[in-house]
Amino acid sequence: MKIRHVVESQQFTVPLLLQLFERTRMMEHIVRRGGTRDYERYIMGTLFYRPSTRTRFSFESAMYRLGGRVLSTEQAREFSSEVEGEQLEDTIRIIGHYCDVIVLRHHEEGGAKRAAAFSTVPVINAGDGEGGQHPTQALLDLYTIYNECKTLDGLSVALIGALDQGRTARSLAYLLGKFDRTKLYFIAPDEMQIKPDILEYLDKHNVSYECTSTADGILPHVDVVYQTRINRERLQKRDIDLTPYNIDGTVLASMKPDAIVMHPLPRSVEIDHAVDADPRAAYFRQTQNGLYLRMALLTMLLDNE
Amino acid sequence: MKIRHVVESQQFTVPLLLQLFERTRMMEHIVRRGGTRDYERYIMGTLFYRPSTRTRFSFESAMYRLGGRVLSTEQAREFSSEVEGEQLEDTIRIIGHYCDVIVLRHHEEGGAKRAAAFSTVPVINAGDGEGGQHPTQALLDLYTIYNECKTLDGLSVALIGALDQGRTARSLAYLLGKFDRTKLYFIAPDEMQIKPDILEYLDKHNVSYECTSTADGILPHVDVVYQTRINRERLQKRDIDLTPYNIDGTVLASMKPDAIVMHPLPRSVEIDHAVDADPRAAYFRQTQNGLYLRMALLTMLLDNE
Amino acid sequence: MKIRHVVESQQFTVPLLLQLFERTRMMEHIVRRGGTRDYERYIMGTLFYRPSTRTRFSFESAMYRLGGRVLSTEQAREFSSEVEGEQLEDTIRIIGHYCDVIVLRHHEEGGAKRAAAFSTVPVINAGDGEGGQHPTQALLDLYTIYNECKTLDGLSVALIGALDQGRTARSLAYLLGKFDRTKLYFIAPDEMQIKPDILEYLDKHNVSYECTSTADGILPHVDVVYQTRINRERLQKRDIDLTPYNIDGTVLASMKPDAIVMHPLPRSVEIDHAVDADPRAAYFRQTQNGLYLRMALLTMLLDNE
Repeated sequence: MKIRHVVESQQFTVPLLLQLFERTRMMEHIVRRGGTRDYERYIMGTLFYRPSTRTRFSFESAMYRLGGRVLSTEQAREFSSEVEGEQLEDTIRIIGHYCDVIVLRHHEEGGAKRAAAFSTVPVINAGDGEGGQHPTQALLDLYTIYNECKTLDGLSVALIGALDQGRTARSLAYLLGKFDRTKLYFIAPDEMQIKPDILEYLDKHNVSYECTSTADGILPHVDVVYQTRINRERLQKRDIDLTPYNIDGTVLASMKPDAIVMHPLPRSVEIDHAVDADPRAAYFRQTQNGLYLRMALLTMLLDNE
Repeated sequence: MKIRHVVESQQFTVPLLLQLFERTRMMEHIVRRGGTRDYERYIMGTLFYRPSTRTRFSFESAMYRLGGRVLSTEQAREFSSEVEGEQLEDTIRIIGHYCDVIVLRHHEEGGAKRAAAFSTVPVINAGDGEGGQHPTQALLDLYTIYNECKTLDGLSVALIGALDQGRTARSLAYLLGKFDRTKLYFIAPDEMQIKPDILEYLDKHNVSYECTSTADGILPHVDVVYQTRINRERLQKRDIDLTPYNIDGTVLASMKPDAIVMHPLPRSVEIDHAVDADPRAAYFRQTQNGLYLRMALLTMLLDNE
Repeated sequence: MKIRHVVESQQFTVPLLLQLFERTRMMEHIVRRGGTRDYERYIMGTLFYRPSTRTRFSFESAMYRLGGRVLSTEQAREFSSEVEGEQLEDTIRIIGHYCDVIVLRHHEEGGAKRAAAFSTVPVINAGDGEGGQHPTQALLDLYTIYNECKTLDGLSVALIGALDQGRTARSLAYLLGKFDRTKLYFIAPDEMQIKPDILEYLDKHNVSYECTSTADGILPHVDVVYQTRINRERLQKRDIDLTPYNIDGTVLASMKPDAIVMHPLPRSVEIDHAVDADPRAAYFRQTQNGLYLRMALLTMLLDNE
């Protein structure tokens, strides 16, 4: 059960997920003890064709806590002036001479897959294209649920917001569908409801779900509320009001005492700052888990080499 | 006498300044011996919303000489597309998961203070806004005077140039006002003279000063000439000639043999290159001191954690 | 036979080249054994006024494999807003306080020479201006030929493409001219043929060469085919077709069994991807050699300090 590249969340079987999460927990202990130097001979290259400081820092911090080195691009612009089709393949092969693992954020859907096909070193997809994959986000989301709820079986999870676009909600729905007795609620305005391909997948795997345009009566019963990121411009263009889907103190008060609120961050207005102080607000723990999970993934790939 | 964040130079009392300067001197010895590995477990994050290679390199070199690691942004642009008010708070909390100290250069006055209020790790202000603070520059300026003049009491210091804008001159005047028998000369065209708030502060603390539009007769008697940076565009717009305020060989010849010339660098024409070879030209030693001072600050903050 | 800065390939005498190449070979062994920590006290500053991720990563990876630290700029933009003439000198002196060696890519021809004149630490030219020097590329090209052909004497080398502009072809021709019985073929459309200054140099040193607008009958006899990078925009503007100069399977089939094909990369269409699998395709080994050669240069300069 070995993986060479991390391209999409679909690669991960349930046993591999649980193995990864066990390693993630170990990484938390390692960080608390001040990190390790076990990987000091390794170099990670972060090749970001689109800037994302948070994701980049998370990976780079992970590599540092393991003792390793980092080659970094904030924005690999000059590549984009080239013939794209040919370029990425050559670039990946060249960069592969300079590091032991590549973290790639590409502007085209499928960029990571193309890179992995030609790379001589492991490639981790840190997001490709708008509709593409961002598997480490999906994995850290699932790990957070596992870590907070102590199980991944029998959970009720509400996903809220502009579900048609958010790849985080899509990937998480996909991964949760692998576990027993999952119940999913997709809460969004009709025109922003989750796309049919996910629902077909859930049907095929006998996962129970409900699509609704209102959160009323649902949030008090779920174990996890996963709020998604808002693209304001898009909302304004389409004249849609997402305010009824926001989480504030009142919504929180209605929730179960051991439920959690998640968000991939950064947020806009979709979660009120008053929620932050509540122990059920799990979104900062969620980003923290991103560090541990990425350390676990890096060691998994580097140990395989 | 502990500090958690470095937000503004006003935080520093005289005892804290002297303690910091003693530590700065130690750091000079450490660098001459090839640096240390004592801080190898620590990660510094440099979060620059405005690029400044020199300041960034100074901090990052400081962290490396201490043995530590660095997460770096040359320009944290993508954040700025977000709702600013909410963003910075969340960003700082997220970045705080990935490093042990944050060095922040923000485009808004007060940005560092807002960040410090929400950060879980120490924040160092590396400049915020045009009219804002840049405390490490002020501290390294003061340290340079201390190191060159062997005292901070009884000094005559001339500050020259566009004093109304330069935050370096303002901060230095503020810090010098804390020491005994300081005499300050503010030399600038009337329309660019230092602002009244600093003068009020000096009055209140019985610091002796003079404002004048000509350097004639003053420079031969001072211990320190602090020349400020010129914003050429601004001068051209307002049709002001700062040439009479430049330092060249003739001015230098009139100065005391143990006086020094300082400048925050980079310079334009305000100090002639012919001055560089004179031992009284202290501006390159000044930038060098920036390294030691930032090392001292980093260790102070990290030791407190 | 010591060098302080690496500004242009002309600095390198034959004995110095051979000494460098011996060191380069040692570096290959060091990398295969997982790198060294011998240079962990050293900091390299990469100061790139023009972005070039591949060149930057090659240098930074080299420094990491030696155990060292890296201060990095992806694009040192803010400097360019300043008065250039004065700026670079001061910048180099300031940056020299923060690192032990500077790798400079400057947008002006002669930038590296100016920097070296003022620097307190060694400067390596990583490319200056369009028509300027890029000595480490020329050196790694020559090393690749040496490493692949096991000699630098008596070689037949064909240089193909837009030879009037490519500094790589010019520098390589210059360096090859230092060795015995070299035979050079410059293959390009007439309007893009190599410039007379190189030919004058070759005449003066009795190096045999031929200029031709067709590759017919030449490639089957040479030891090295050096294909250059294409600037597509320029070709389109001048309505020139370089297709007859491309390397594909047919051209390769005509070549000697122990000949090699080189290219500075990235390529466009000038070498067909079908060529990649052939052991004679040396261009990826060539970029790999860039790592070893830059390690060798860094140690040479740092050991001299």
